[in-house]
Amino acid sequence: MEKQGLLYEGKAKRIYATDEAEVVWVEYKDSATAYNGEKKATISGKGRLNNEITSLLFDYLKSAGVESHFIEKLSSTEQLVKRVTIIPLEVVVRNIAAGSFSKRTGVDEGELLKQPIVEFYYKNDDLGDPLLTLDHVLELELATEETVNDLKERALYINTLLREYFLEREVKLVDFKLEFGMTAEGTIMLADEISPDTCRLWDSNTNEKLDKDVFRRDIGNLTEAYEQILARLGGSESCIK
Amino acid sequence: MEKQGLLYEGKAKRIYATDEAEVVWVEYKDSATAYNGEKKATISGKGRLNNEITSLLFDYLKSAGVESHFIEKLSSTEQLVKRVTIIPLEVVVRNIAAGSFSKRTGVDEGELLKQPIVEFYYKNDDLGDPLLTLDHVLELELATEETVNDLKERALYINTLLREYFLEREVKLVDFKLEFGMTAEGTIMLADEISPDTCRLWDSNTNEKLDKDVFRRDIGNLTEAYEQILARLGGSESCIK
Ligand SMILES: Nc1ncnc2c1ncn2[C@@H]1O[C@H](COP(=O)(O)OP(=O)(O)O)[C@@H](O)[C@H]1O
Ligand SMILES: Nc1ncnc2c1ncn2[C@@H]1O[C@H](COP(=O)(O)OP(=O)(O)O)[C@@H](O)[C@H]1O
Ligand SMILES: [Mg+2]
Ligand SMILES: [Mg+2]
Repeated sequence: MEKQGLLYEGKAKRIYATDEAEVVWVEYKDSATAYNGEKKATISGKGRLNNEITSLLFDYLKSAGVESHFIEKLSSTEQLVKRVTIIPLEVVVRNIAAGSFSKRTGVDEGELLKQPIVEFYYKNDDLGDPLLTLDHVLELELATEETVNDLKERALYINTLLREYFLEREVKLVDFKLEFGMTAEGTIMLADEISPDTCRLWDSNTNEKLDKDVFRRDIGNLTEAYEQILARLGGSESCIK
Repeated sequence: MEKQGLLYEGKAKRIYATDEAEVVWVEYKDSATAYNGEKKATISGKGRLNNEITSLLFDYLKSAGVESHFIEKLSSTEQLVKRVTIIPLEVVVRNIAAGSFSKRTGVDEGELLKQPIVEFYYKNDDLGDPLLTLDHVLELELATEETVNDLKERALYINTLLREYFLEREVKLVDFKLEFGMTAEGTIMLADEISPDTCRLWDSNTNEKLDKDVFRRDIGNLTEAYEQILARLGGSESCIK
């Protein structure tokens, strides 16, 4: 496989074309951003950690029957994935109240929800990634009602898989964000990344935060936290400093 | 009916007990507030106009089969209503994009929606009346799913009635907010007010704003706009200055 021109550079990754139309080359960057890009930093090692963790999690999900765009890890910061058109919805699953959910609803951070909640946010930096209801999604024609229900079901199933997987490794999966995309043939699949950048992960004994909140809230060393997650997921030696 | 102690003072109305347990006395105030109380003013005549307009609209809805808390108008600023426990949800119906909907979704103000949209906001000043999804409502136990569906259906029906009623009077019903409450016997009914404070109303020929946006955005004389609405609804002489 040959790496070709840059297709898109986001806040956390660069996406390159390859010599195969249906495959793109992903490079994880060392940049950290929060609050819709207001807070920024370069954190050496972050790209490697997110690439390793995402690769492990997509491999695990595949073994449990959940197809994703993930094809293979190429290097410590690179992977090959199937090219998709991203559905501009950030699909958030919450098990425990935290972050914007606590702010919105007044439910204290840390409170276990009665049942997992799925939310849809408009993936639109100009609008600040706002929460949408189903009616908003339909009005904006971001997805059909059928697709929204399908994404919700998939997200909840991925949640049951990941929650258990993390808990066995003494990590609470508080909440996480998924992106889905559509292949050229019209198949919808899980895409993007699943990493401490896109999940809230708390040590199940101490509730220590092992995710991007460490950066957002300036409460510790981000790479140490992410190394913790990688180690607990059994990351290969090459990934442990 | 005898007016007794003040039960509750809100931003727009005072609610008093009466000698009948199931009846309360409402006094419409001359105060205008916006942006969750950040912007405030006293506008002489506003209480009268909202009382007159709400009374007319609740009478019309009743004639069309929609029961509300409204019993009777007592004076130019007072009415008797059935006492209810307000369900802490602001039920918003939108026909045309405007205000926070345009901000959230990027749909230009003035654009006709494909179909009317119902939104639920948490009636909670401390949290800034945030938008909620059904799952949030259930998690917070603000209403059952059955009640949410029922409120949505009622709101859409009220919308078809009011939209036509206003249009016959050369007014576009852009959007509006309803509150519902439960009587001591457990009956859910429409409550609170329906006025230019709680609706967006545009002249159907010129799109001139005839509602609280005149105050929010400092674009004219509020009492003149509200008098326009009252006049078009055929308000009684006593209400026209
Ligand atoms: N399989 C894929 N095919 C095409 N684009 C993808 C794929 N997976 C993820 N993307 C997109 O790549 C872009 C870069 O990722 P990222 O840096 O995380 O962007 P963002 O700043 O939007 O979070 C994002 O728009 C993401 O949705
Ligand atoms: N029939 C009713 N019985 C009891 N309370 C009511 C009834 N109708 C409206 N209310 C409540 O009366 C309060 C005063 O109204 P208002 O001044 O508009 O308050 P707010 O500042 O919350 O908008 C509000 O909490 C409203 O929900
Ligand atoms: Mg991203
Ligand atoms: Mg009010």
